Amino acid sequence: MTQPRTPIRLPEKASTDRSDLDRLLDSTHIGHFALVSEDGTPAVIPTMVVRDGDRVLAHGSTGSRWMRRLATGAPTALGVTAYDGLVVARSAFESSIRYRSAVIFGRCSTVTEDKERFLDLVTETLIPGRSAEVRRPTKAELAATLVLALPLEDWSMKVSAGWPEDEDDDIAGPAWAGVVHVHHVYDAPLVAPDLRDGIDVPPSVRALAERSGG
Amino acid sequence: MTQPRTPIRLPEKASTDRSDLDRLLDSTHIGHFALVSEDGTPAVIPTMVVRDGDRVLAHGSTGSRWMRRLATGAPTALGVTAYDGLVVARSAFESSIRYRSAVIFGRCSTVTEDKERFLDLVTETLIPGRSAEVRRPTKAELAATLVLALPLEDWSMKVSAGWPEDEDDDIAGPAWAGVVHVHHVYDAPLVAPDLRDGIDVPPSVRALAERSGG
Repeated sequence: MTQPRTPIRLPEKASTDRSDLDRLLDSTHIGHFALVSEDGTPAVIPTMVVRDGDRVLAHGSTGSRWMRRLATGAPTALGVTAYDGLVVARSAFESSIRYRSAVIFGRCSTVTEDKERFLDLVTETLIPGRSAEVRRPTKAELAATLVLALPLEDWSMKVSAGWPEDEDDDIAGPAWAGVVHVHHVYDAPLVAPDLRDGIDVPPSVRALAERSGG
Repeated sequence: MTQPRTPIRLPEKASTDRSDLDRLLDSTHIGHFALVSEDGTPAVIPTMVVRDGDRVLAHGSTGSRWMRRLATGAPTALGVTAYDGLVVARSAFESSIRYRSAVIFGRCSTVTEDKERFLDLVTETLIPGRSAEVRRPTKAELAATLVLALPLEDWSMKVSAGWPEDEDDDIAGPAWAGVVHVHHVYDAPLVAPDLRDGIDVPPSVRALAERSGG
């Protein structure tokens, strides 16, 4: 299936715009993989995800039981959700949140080549510029990393980006209504206890605070 | 089962401390419910969750297909994850994130009484003080709200709160290492387009910006 699914509920919030999906995946890196255990019960695996073109990549240890199960091609549904802010309505009932939420259905495959590029992608996604400041990964490190890829083919997405939708009686009343956005801010870097003297905070880490305005 | 599960992977990151779980659930309100569809495939439902003592509550429309399936008592696994910051190691391989992640296993029951207290709890969780600034919910609003409760009985949790763990060769090298925490900041409130003149931003909403230091 190459057309995105339309959610059954709240279809007015559905987005079938691939650029919305890409923006979400490029800014939110916590994903929750749902899968079915051998005994038929559901499981959920929180893990870091990064987009690589038309697929989402996740990585973990080759020793992880759930990662290995995903690697066998077991059907999965990956949820990625960004909390963008509060919708403050004039009643509790109409109050809600602004969010963007995607579910990607499919089966993972194992990425066997290009793992070094993948590690760079993870690094650059989280800390732009960091790859050039650290040594290259070793063969042993690459061998110990299991990389899974889920294609962006079968997905649905909801975007809640609206304003309070109060009843006329409430609009005529005394209560305030609006939206309060939220964003991430990086704090000042904390130095590792075992850092040797004379090593400055690198440009990539300094840029985190500047980027987020913190 | 009343003892928390110990994750198979990374057991050194496991927490069996109920207060860790409570702190996570009291600060992170996006949850992902995994469940198994009628056809045996996995599904994941992103939704808002709030803790109410020894259970987690979620709510949705009585018309939601997935919420109704959860309400039948279908087995579920709820994942809740907080992204707390970056662990910047001296190599890409050892770099990671600080996070807290819980998975709660079980079956939801439907909350039929006390829905008004539940709506207050949601409001106060997201915007402390807001309940007293808005009208009470109507009977129709309460009737339209499906509230599900998942007991905090069978759960596992991982807490990644450590420092980079680099090899000796890397520690002796030129790269920096440390941790950069992240936190949420609420922006200045945006006024709803249909807000009547002369209604000030209420104390509950002003307090959001003060609370987060933004």
